Amino acid sequence: MKNRVITISREFGSGGRTIGKMTAEKLGIKCYDSELIQKIASESGFDEKYIKDAGEYAPGGFLSSALLNRAFGPTNEDYLWKIQYKIITDLAEKESCVIVGRCADYILKDKADCLRVFIHADMKFRAERIVKVYGERDESPEERLKDKDKRRAAYHRFYTDMKWGHAQNYDITLNSGTLGIENCVDIITKLY
Amino acid sequence: MKNRVITISREFGSGGRTIGKMTAEKLGIKCYDSELIQKIASESGFDEKYIKDAGEYAPGGFLSSALLNRAFGPTNEDYLWKIQYKIITDLAEKESCVIVGRCADYILKDKADCLRVFIHADMKFRAERIVKVYGERDESPEERLKDKDKRRAAYHRFYTDMKWGHAQNYDITLNSGTLGIENCVDIITKLY
Repeated sequence: MKNRVITISREFGSGGRTIGKMTAEKLGIKCYDSELIQKIASESGFDEKYIKDAGEYAPGGFLSSALLNRAFGPTNEDYLWKIQYKIITDLAEKESCVIVGRCADYILKDKADCLRVFIHADMKFRAERIVKVYGERDESPEERLKDKDKRRAAYHRFYTDMKWGHAQNYDITLNSGTLGIENCVDIITKLY
Repeated sequence: MKNRVITISREFGSGGRTIGKMTAEKLGIKCYDSELIQKIASESGFDEKYIKDAGEYAPGGFLSSALLNRAFGPTNEDYLWKIQYKIITDLAEKESCVIVGRCADYILKDKADCLRVFIHADMKFRAERIVKVYGERDESPEERLKDKDKRRAAYHRFYTDMKWGHAQNYDITLNSGTLGIENCVDIITKLY
């Protein structure tokens, strides 16, 4: 136990995933992002798209339906959360790594030696980035970002009871828009 | 205009003031903290203790009484805020510097090239630090810290309508408790 793990929470479009990958590469450790979804898929039997949607990218009503259904026992979401919890805990036990998203900061609290990072940027930076990087064609990328932000915050809040984006929950938070992706990578790498 | 200014907001006891002073020294620029209070005092005619209390260290009821009194025109606090606003704006116009507290991040928004920093640490770290550094003798430093946190957040919210400690309001937030004071100084110095 007590491997060193960098957990990265991030606003959609802020470059958090890229920063995670670049940092891991520099440090010669693995970065888990979509690999995590694959692991959860293979362990749970659900398909990857469902896990992605039911997780941070919850479709409209997911949280409220999860709450309603809970009266009748554990939901699919609770089942996935348990698997996610176990996979992330196992990873941290096995190796030092970077984990992007999936509430890893909360799951590994008191379990691993974590550097808890939050990456954010203003709307303009992120809107331009999702159009450029993901080729998003939406008429209003800003609306899509606002929606994503809301869902991620709600998901995080629901399962962790922590306020997403609140400085006090992290060791460091970085504005990738004003500081630049490279600077963020350098700072995290040096702190590790 | 467009000097480079580092603004440091901080939780009481987190070492934000020390980090500001050390960073300024390393960069060979000035750090304004208590000097700011002196300037506000000499410009306003109020004494330094009053300004300190009426500012971030507002005594119980200050905010509510400020709200009530406002119905009858501007209050002392509004008058002080205007002077503080002008002094901080003038400073940024005159020189590159570090400014600790006093909502400088908000005041200089769009006015100077700012690196907006927030320093925080957990209760245990801060409680030990205020006893060690300030020789606080309270039976419960934790209670005092909670009270200070509340006042600073309320003051900030009242005058700036920004959420204090929300990552999105800063370029970088640092946990001085887990990262260490020296690391914080290094990171800010390099980013400057």
